[in-house]
Amino acid sequence: MKFGGTSIADAEKIRAAARRAIRTGKRGHQVVMVVSAMGKATDVLTELARKASSGTEPPRREMDQLLATGEQVTISLMAMALEAAGASAISFTAGQIGMVTDDVHTKAKIKSIDVRRIHEQLDAGKIVIIAGFQGVTETGAVTTLGRGGSNVTLVAIAAALKAEVCENYTDVDGIFTADPRIVPSARKIERISYDEMLELASLGASVLHNRAVEFAKKYDVPIHVRSSLHNRKGTMIVAETESMERIVVSGVALKGDLARVTLHDVPDTPGVAARILHAIAIGGIVVDDIIQTIAGKRKATVSFTVEFSDLSDARKVIAKLCKTLKCKAIFEDHLAKVSVVGVGMRIHTHVAERMFATLAKAKINIENITTSEIKISCLIDRGQGKRAMRLIHDAFNLGRKKPGAGKKKKKPHAHKAS
Amino acid sequence: MKFGGTSIADAEKIRAAARRAIRTGKRGHQVVMVVSAMGKATDVLTELARKASSGTEPPRREMDQLLATGEQVTISLMAMALEAAGASAISFTAGQIGMVTDDVHTKAKIKSIDVRRIHEQLDAGKIVIIAGFQGVTETGAVTTLGRGGSNVTLVAIAAALKAEVCENYTDVDGIFTADPRIVPSARKIERISYDEMLELASLGASVLHNRAVEFAKKYDVPIHVRSSLHNRKGTMIVAETESMERIVVSGVALKGDLARVTLHDVPDTPGVAARILHAIAIGGIVVDDIIQTIAGKRKATVSFTVEFSDLSDARKVIAKLCKTLKCKAIFEDHLAKVSVVGVGMRIHTHVAERMFATLAKAKINIENITTSEIKISCLIDRGQGKRAMRLIHDAFNLGRKKPGAGKKKKKPHAHKAS
Repeated sequence: MKFGGTSIADAEKIRAAARRAIRTGKRGHQVVMVVSAMGKATDVLTELARKASSGTEPPRREMDQLLATGEQVTISLMAMALEAAGASAISFTAGQIGMVTDDVHTKAKIKSIDVRRIHEQLDAGKIVIIAGFQGVTETGAVTTLGRGGSNVTLVAIAAALKAEVCENYTDVDGIFTADPRIVPSARKIERISYDEMLELASLGASVLHNRAVEFAKKYDVPIHVRSSLHNRKGTMIVAETESMERIVVSGVALKGDLARVTLHDVPDTPGVAARILHAIAIGGIVVDDIIQTIAGKRKATVSFTVEFSDLSDARKVIAKLCKTLKCKAIFEDHLAKVSVVGVGMRIHTHVAERMFATLAKAKINIENITTSEIKISCLIDRGQGKRAMRLIHDAFNLGRKKPGAGKKKKKPHAHKAS
Repeated sequence: MKFGGTSIADAEKIRAAARRAIRTGKRGHQVVMVVSAMGKATDVLTELARKASSGTEPPRREMDQLLATGEQVTISLMAMALEAAGASAISFTAGQIGMVTDDVHTKAKIKSIDVRRIHEQLDAGKIVIIAGFQGVTETGAVTTLGRGGSNVTLVAIAAALKAEVCENYTDVDGIFTADPRIVPSARKIERISYDEMLELASLGASVLHNRAVEFAKKYDVPIHVRSSLHNRKGTMIVAETESMERIVVSGVALKGDLARVTLHDVPDTPGVAARILHAIAIGGIVVDDIIQTIAGKRKATVSFTVEFSDLSDARKVIAKLCKTLKCKAIFEDHLAKVSVVGVGMRIHTHVAERMFATLAKAKINIENITTSEIKISCLIDRGQGKRAMRLIHDAFNLGRKKPGAGKKKKKPHAHKAS
């Protein structure tokens, strides 16, 4: 059971999480809890680091040594809450259970876990609490696992223990067919494949970081994303099954803050696109989709999308590049990307067709299309993003059935029975 | 160099401590810093523990796991401050340098230190920062060393490294002949012996905890208690030397919150005092001085002093005891103890005489007298405590010479020269 920052933001929430773990234990399970730092703890520590460093970049080893205290505080408080509620519990830092990582501070990768001590304590009837997000190098330095690190810990521990279930408690009810803040009729998905989750996460659904999902896919660990506020089931993220193919589209995602850079008159020589993208990459800018087209004799057009927040950095890099390559750059900052995701696309056709028709009917212009085996994305005007999302969500019948519509459908059966 | 909580209460103070360490390094020293938790960090963590535990006593192992984060935060911030100021630095938790303790959580005792990694880093030109107050058991559990624990770490590290100097930076200028808040003329002591410091500490001077001083005495580590606010020398706590004997009295101490319990008509049978004190001890009450006198045929009077805050607990224990022993109890809650301390007493006489005469002349009644080889204590009325301290401080000429008096004494020499 993993509890993220908002699910353990204060002592009362920590006690609630403890009670939930105890209930799970009473149903006959051995329970391991993975916890993050409390609510805003990481922000407080980062601010302290900024002040102590007088504006210089703090050494990464020391940043990890500092940030890891956030989880160490929560594990001990959780153990106290469990003991106060009558359970037997023990907390472990990453070092104490031999969660060994490489030494790439601030984004370390797990190399091995020594589960012996966890098993020992579980067998002694204890609830074991493990600090998420952190690891330890072979020489004992503290590392952290980077963004989404606590979920990586969760999946790694579940895989190492061969856990039956791996529950990720959050402040949302699960994974939805679309962001419910934008699409009110969005429906909670019961089961979704790792691959669909990966596409949705990279497309802007922020519940689970991709690294954790990739890890879960690799070790085939089912993740149950659920709410810490009630007992209803959430979404199971699992390996793809045949029955999933019956559902054509699982969800619609929107990335609302994209910009596009288009380079005209690029010399069409081998490696020129690579050269452009290399310049962009060393500028620290993450490129989304890339399109290269031939535009006449020995000239090509290269266009790519970037996050809006990276646009001003991209402008500088591109300005230099255009001088060298003698090409012309056009920048567009008003774009969004709407995507449909679903393993069902592998066998069902007409998904693209229905998507394009929906947008066309609504007079929303498609600037660009990118696809993968289980995803179709359209670049559109940002002002139309949310509307497009709602229309496509409707077009694939992803929403909850309206109460009225549901009743109507059931009535005939009722008549038959009477 | 050890920096306590008030000397590193915020980022600015941490940076000031870092600059001081760098200056010391530039004078050709290898520098190891031992740091406590920041200002009120321990209080914040303790309050979180109280809330998570819903008022129950938290497990000590978890309390240690929690509290040790306080020092882990400071070591990493100190390393950042040092690096930002251009030095090369590395921080270590107790676990990372193999500061192994027994497993008596919340008051563990150090068993061994593996100084190899400290030497490695010092030899690589780094300033090494070590978390005070904490240790680690042989199985990797985090422990804490109890009250005054950071000073114990300081002395233990200094002893293990065979350090030239061991500097304890505080918010006071050093050890004084008396508490300057009570005796304005109190003078900073330049050198004091471990034994005198131990007597002064147990008598109410709260700069250094006895455990650290005992440790320093055992391994003959000189401690320099000095201010983190300026560069003036503080007080050296060192092994006793012959020259110290010239100074008859080093300091005057006052314990202002004592109560006395007197039991009359106690059956004068062997072991009865032990029985009384055992009952008191298992009640968790710390007894100060004990006096037993024979008062007639087979009856004795047993009297002892306790901290005022323990008096109500003592009343309950004694009430039970008196029923069994059929003795009468008298409780006095208005007492204080004034003491003079000095290794010079070993060869100089008349110390007691001068002390008693001073009190008699001021019409301060002595309720009780206790002595050791280097200490004389008088139990007196609490209302007279501060006045008695000032009078005795004057009687032994411990204060700073008044500017006027000093000039007068020097004048004759000046006249001679002219």
